[in-house]
Amino acid sequence: MDEERADRATAFVPGHVTGFFSPCAADDPARAGSRGAGVTLSDGVRVTVRADDGPESRLTLDGDPLSMPPVETVLDALDADGVRVVAESDLPLGTGFGVSGAMALGTALAANHALGRGRSENDLVALAHRAEVVAGTGLGDVVAQARGGVPIRLDPGEPSHGRLDGVPATRRIEYVTFGDLSTVDVLAGDTDPLVDAGDRALSRLVDCPTLPELLAASRWFARETGLPTDRVRGVVDDVVDAGGEASMAMLGETVFALGTGLSDAGVDAAACRTCEAGAHLVAPDRP
Amino acid sequence: MDEERADRATAFVPGHVTGFFSPCAADDPARAGSRGAGVTLSDGVRVTVRADDGPESRLTLDGDPLSMPPVETVLDALDADGVRVVAESDLPLGTGFGVSGAMALGTALAANHALGRGRSENDLVALAHRAEVVAGTGLGDVVAQARGGVPIRLDPGEPSHGRLDGVPATRRIEYVTFGDLSTVDVLAGDTDPLVDAGDRALSRLVDCPTLPELLAASRWFARETGLPTDRVRGVVDDVVDAGGEASMAMLGETVFALGTGLSDAGVDAAACRTCEAGAHLVAPDRP
Repeated sequence: MDEERADRATAFVPGHVTGFFSPCAADDPARAGSRGAGVTLSDGVRVTVRADDGPESRLTLDGDPLSMPPVETVLDALDADGVRVVAESDLPLGTGFGVSGAMALGTALAANHALGRGRSENDLVALAHRAEVVAGTGLGDVVAQARGGVPIRLDPGEPSHGRLDGVPATRRIEYVTFGDLSTVDVLAGDTDPLVDAGDRALSRLVDCPTLPELLAASRWFARETGLPTDRVRGVVDDVVDAGGEASMAMLGETVFALGTGLSDAGVDAAACRTCEAGAHLVAPDRP
Repeated sequence: MDEERADRATAFVPGHVTGFFSPCAADDPARAGSRGAGVTLSDGVRVTVRADDGPESRLTLDGDPLSMPPVETVLDALDADGVRVVAESDLPLGTGFGVSGAMALGTALAANHALGRGRSENDLVALAHRAEVVAGTGLGDVVAQARGGVPIRLDPGEPSHGRLDGVPATRRIEYVTFGDLSTVDVLAGDTDPLVDAGDRALSRLVDCPTLPELLAASRWFARETGLPTDRVRGVVDDVVDAGGEASMAMLGETVFALGTGLSDAGVDAAACRTCEAGAHLVAPDRP
């Protein structure tokens, strides 16, 4: 099979947990987004796009039909009407893992390849970033997921405007989810306290770009902003009391921890790793 | 074992084959480098740095002691005297695979971790990039190897100055090597024709960022600059005659091809893939 000519293509996009962030509004969605930092995850989303005969595009996530405005915006921008988008996720939607960003970015990469649209990676990341920002479902996941590793978002926006660095680390990551929080609702509230706390947490991490410092700055941000629920606060405290490093995923009722932090605190947690690679096409001969 | 506290660390850096390039001189090595494009390879270099008792650092490549100025510059910058650097490479040195860049970048990542120096990824990439440029052993490999995938170098220099994009593709890559060419010698000659041809090849690829176009632009660049030896030219012609896509690795007496291009032309070639991930630390629990 010629990998360059396919009427279907699959992309993998890592999950992304934000530990702290500072929302940056702008009239131009290409320049809007957030500063902040987090970890990308080897657990993520696989998106397959297939040219189809239907009049309208159809999207499923883990077998269930659904409608996602950022995905539809990406398909429109790539003139990809009437395709089938099949997404399979290791991670739950709406709980702080960047699943909606992953769906938008994975759709962009896979549709570009399946339909031979000839866009560059920066173009595709920009499309997905703008679609997420306009929908209000995320501010920094897409650029972080495109990069992989442990991304530090120094300046907001799509690749031609934003600026990224990274914490040089690879580590086992554990996580546990109790439920969802609405990103749209939090961002619709007063964001000034988030901006202030997020910028201060970022200064800390830039001075000392290590994983333990990322988690410590994230805990400080969570306390300052009061975003954690009682249940999240309790689990984070348990991990720290057991000598581990954990914090809340922004934004979900989710706790993530380094190494065996959650297990050591007696919490039944899922485990994966930081993801070495950013979002990428998956070769058809390598399932 | 706590992955955050180790007196040894290992990094993997993908190989990188440049298809075309346009050298960009600058007094400041942070801003010098090259525009161009190529492919990163899942074959690469593994570098382990270990704190040691000796008075001087010791470096081996595939078991043989050697001296490499860029590696020594990186160790000096990280105040890493008296360490042991053990490198193992899937690829030969000096033949256009970016092995010297990989050694410098892998040393930076591994030494930073082993000695707890607390530098960010951009800082470490910048160190390795400047060390390569000053030594004259490479101009664009390090930033490409830090990124992974199929990097397009739009603007030269370390991460705070350079600008990268990518061809969104994943593909089997074949390669064959007949010998080395001296990067130092080529760059010491008249580079004006390289700049002109490299910039024109880059325009082509930016207009159509696909792998077949990358290979076609690379062949055009190779013809314009006259860099291929007769043997390289002959093998590239054989692959194209057999319906494949191939070009010369800049700079080595090496041919690389998409898919099964070299095998299909009857050439006994090594095979790997484009590398999804940029340079990264390797977890101690994952060999």
